[in-house]
Amino acid sequence: MRRLDEQLDFVREVGRLKSVLRQTVLADSGRAENSAEHSWHLAMMAITLAEHAPAGTDLARVIGMVLVHDLVEIDAGDLFVYADQSEHDKQDVAERAAADRIFAILPAEQAVAMRRLWDEFTERRTAEAKFARALDRLQPMLENMAVGGGTWLRHGITADQVLAKVELIEDGSAALGSYAREMIGRAVATGILQPPRSRKEDQLDG
Amino acid sequence: MRRLDEQLDFVREVGRLKSVLRQTVLADSGRAENSAEHSWHLAMMAITLAEHAPAGTDLARVIGMVLVHDLVEIDAGDLFVYADQSEHDKQDVAERAAADRIFAILPAEQAVAMRRLWDEFTERRTAEAKFARALDRLQPMLENMAVGGGTWLRHGITADQVLAKVELIEDGSAALGSYAREMIGRAVATGILQPPRSRKEDQLDG
Repeated sequence: MRRLDEQLDFVREVGRLKSVLRQTVLADSGRAENSAEHSWHLAMMAITLAEHAPAGTDLARVIGMVLVHDLVEIDAGDLFVYADQSEHDKQDVAERAAADRIFAILPAEQAVAMRRLWDEFTERRTAEAKFARALDRLQPMLENMAVGGGTWLRHGITADQVLAKVELIEDGSAALGSYAREMIGRAVATGILQPPRSRKEDQLDG
Repeated sequence: MRRLDEQLDFVREVGRLKSVLRQTVLADSGRAENSAEHSWHLAMMAITLAEHAPAGTDLARVIGMVLVHDLVEIDAGDLFVYADQSEHDKQDVAERAAADRIFAILPAEQAVAMRRLWDEFTERRTAEAKFARALDRLQPMLENMAVGGGTWLRHGITADQVLAKVELIEDGSAALGSYAREMIGRAVATGILQPPRSRKEDQLDG
């Protein structure tokens, strides 16, 4: 098979990510967001917010990671970020199998390079991966704020659950972490996010 | 206003591109493609097909251009590539006004940098812009092939109209141009694209 044929088979295959639906609901249309447009939004965030990554962060690798990070969902589907641990464990297995299949459509050395980007994102060890993961956590929070609650209200998510995700944003970008923390404060104050369970219990006790 | 607030206002605003629909119909779902997921697909094509750009092409700029190239459609909407010249002229005016508004949401120097990317794509003078535009022309052809005709059949597009777009692909990448030309040959042979008008007339005369 010609090299270009393999590459265009990959291009066609990844297009299926447009049909993978996420929990996030879009303010404009009221429909579920799909993982392809979500990935584009993260890439736009990467180029817009690059200065808030730690000094020396390689933006090209951040962009590469956010573009490919969800490709495995073509086989494994999207898992809600607040799913329980056993579901996350099953998802991890399914995603690794998907990565094995999907990246292998490419010519060998490209398959290795793109798989390495996906592994880097998943392992979250480098500054680039931490920043990319911070964007991936921040974007649905922005969408939830825009629709006045979204998945937070629908799934009864509380502020302490969201704040646990904010730690991951802070780990990738101090500035974006502070922004997210302020935003969650506003969300609790306006009632679109339930207060932390501990505070609710305090109130019940008080 | 804080710099980060301006940047995140821009991030929120560009999310509206997910609601701009294109003529292209997606094979998986049968629904219209939107301009955000289309832009993601082009970015995936850019990283996958980079070696088919002329030597020395700056891939980061290509990716930047394909990510932002359709943002103006948030105000101006998407125009079908085979629309007539007067419609294209009107669209150009609307898109420039949209670029003036949308990029200005950003802090000043970022607005200039991102507007410059959009201008570069639009003017199609540099190798990077020519390659980005080639991807933007090739992607809907791949989608039309996948659905067995798509916009070609729906709008009665003929092979000569598509071949005029192939010249633009060849101008950005010789290899992708050849691929597109072969693909159109197959499309005519299998009847999902009408033969060039001149050939149809020959047949009528013959």
